[in-house]
Amino acid sequence: MNTAILLMSDDDQFVEELKAEFLFRRPEIRIFLPEEDGAEQAEVAACWYPDPSLLTRYPNIKCLHSVAAGVDHLGEVLLTSGLPICRVVDDLQKQGMFEYVLWGVLNMHRNFDKAGANQRESHWHRYSQRSASDISIGVLGLGELGQFVAQGLAQFGYSVLGWSRSQKNLENIDCYNGSQGLKGLLKQSEVLVNLLPLSSTTQGILNKDLFNAMPVAGYIINCGRGGHLVNDDLLDALESGQLRGALLDVFNKEPLPENDPLWQASGVLITPHVASDASLSTIVDQVADNALRFMANDCLNNKIDPAKGY
Amino acid sequence: MNTAILLMSDDDQFVEELKAEFLFRRPEIRIFLPEEDGAEQAEVAACWYPDPSLLTRYPNIKCLHSVAAGVDHLGEVLLTSGLPICRVVDDLQKQGMFEYVLWGVLNMHRNFDKAGANQRESHWHRYSQRSASDISIGVLGLGELGQFVAQGLAQFGYSVLGWSRSQKNLENIDCYNGSQGLKGLLKQSEVLVNLLPLSSTTQGILNKDLFNAMPVAGYIINCGRGGHLVNDDLLDALESGQLRGALLDVFNKEPLPENDPLWQASGVLITPHVASDASLSTIVDQVADNALRFMANDCLNNKIDPAKGY
Repeated sequence: MNTAILLMSDDDQFVEELKAEFLFRRPEIRIFLPEEDGAEQAEVAACWYPDPSLLTRYPNIKCLHSVAAGVDHLGEVLLTSGLPICRVVDDLQKQGMFEYVLWGVLNMHRNFDKAGANQRESHWHRYSQRSASDISIGVLGLGELGQFVAQGLAQFGYSVLGWSRSQKNLENIDCYNGSQGLKGLLKQSEVLVNLLPLSSTTQGILNKDLFNAMPVAGYIINCGRGGHLVNDDLLDALESGQLRGALLDVFNKEPLPENDPLWQASGVLITPHVASDASLSTIVDQVADNALRFMANDCLNNKIDPAKGY
Repeated sequence: MNTAILLMSDDDQFVEELKAEFLFRRPEIRIFLPEEDGAEQAEVAACWYPDPSLLTRYPNIKCLHSVAAGVDHLGEVLLTSGLPICRVVDDLQKQGMFEYVLWGVLNMHRNFDKAGANQRESHWHRYSQRSASDISIGVLGLGELGQFVAQGLAQFGYSVLGWSRSQKNLENIDCYNGSQGLKGLLKQSEVLVNLLPLSSTTQGILNKDLFNAMPVAGYIINCGRGGHLVNDDLLDALESGQLRGALLDVFNKEPLPENDPLWQASGVLITPHVASDASLSTIVDQVADNALRFMANDCLNNKIDPAKGY
């Protein structure tokens, strides 16, 4: 019998697009949406914000696949189910993340943020130019994405520091780990890029204490998760001038509610969780390959350690 | 007798800073500001928007040196004086220009401009992601700066086309020349970057006809000179939607007058002629070296052809 995959997400349009891409690229695999005839036969589920009762509704599922780089959207019930969990790793997604972060860094470094504020008042004011090597950037999280971004920034000429749970040794990156290491990194980081996975130890890490440990007028780029950031602390730090600005792509509640004060906070740029998406074709190929591997009892690609969350 | 250089600019603060840097870095060379005792002995003048009567006031001057990449600020009288004219070529300046242009390209490519407009209305709207290779960028002008920028963009993954007076062959760049070549480039260029020198043939080149030859909703980045752009045509093209936006660094009159409609035009970003400055240390070293070469009758570095303007 052919391998079967159940697609489950809270975004109906997305699963329809994903199903069409599966049928086009991998016609040998049977694809089911919830409630479709035969869905209960699937042993692999490909998910984006799935129903937490997935395993009760479909007890035949024995392998969970995130359709993104992150897995936190699977939710506690599925993350602790003991089933193997895989994620998608897309080289173009890494490039997309690097593009996003680099834009944010240049926005600060080359004073496009200040130029924009001056333009609103028809005010001409020149700034002296600094070379990229004068700008120190701290990257929190040195996983697949974090390493790629950190090394791209270093190659572009910036001075890059990196922080991870376990000590890493990366070319052109000044690597730190542990809580003392974090302090050492923060005091040198004019720009801080968050690419950490969300876990109980990283929840709320972008808070008052962290902002105060950075040089005055620092800049925050959050491409991790909304749960990393303490919003009120950010607003206070912007107000006091401890932070110069922030580029935020992820939020506790998405879409960000219309009445959230972040929308109109001075110095804050909001993007709608678009820093980096895997392409549909990559999702399909990697999920399909892993589904075949799972059915053949082969080793799975990009399997995560649920205890670490990545 | 020691080599002597006259510094002349309409910006008093700048020449004071430049003189201090000369005295610090090259104490073997005598530096004069206008009216200082001995200024009439100088045979080399280092200039930024100099007095057009420079040569009448200082008839001993036999070599003119721009302190920037461009020479148009010398003005017609000096450009047609028949004296040798040199300019500064700074590798870090090239990098600065690339940073500026790349920020502008990413601003369009990754929809930061649309995200900013949506943010003002607290509106969450996601855009599908395109890879850099899907974006075609035309670069007008393939001199030192243009080549560096074009090749940097190509290396970043963009599809890059280039246009110059004489045909060039550059790795990873689709090269065009002549008026037919310009049309061929324009119809494929979603983003157009102007890095041409200003001359009688390039004056007003960024006009209605050019915008209409581009794909609908194109994006303009002008890092050349204000004289390249027909402002009213730009405003019309933005209004009609033929252009999506423009990033402008240079203007006919600088500072851009407070009442200029460009300041508040929708889709226009204004920066105050900061895309790329040569560093003081590079200016000093290159002008000093050329002054010594001139006095020794050696071949001059970075000498321009006044007929071409570069």
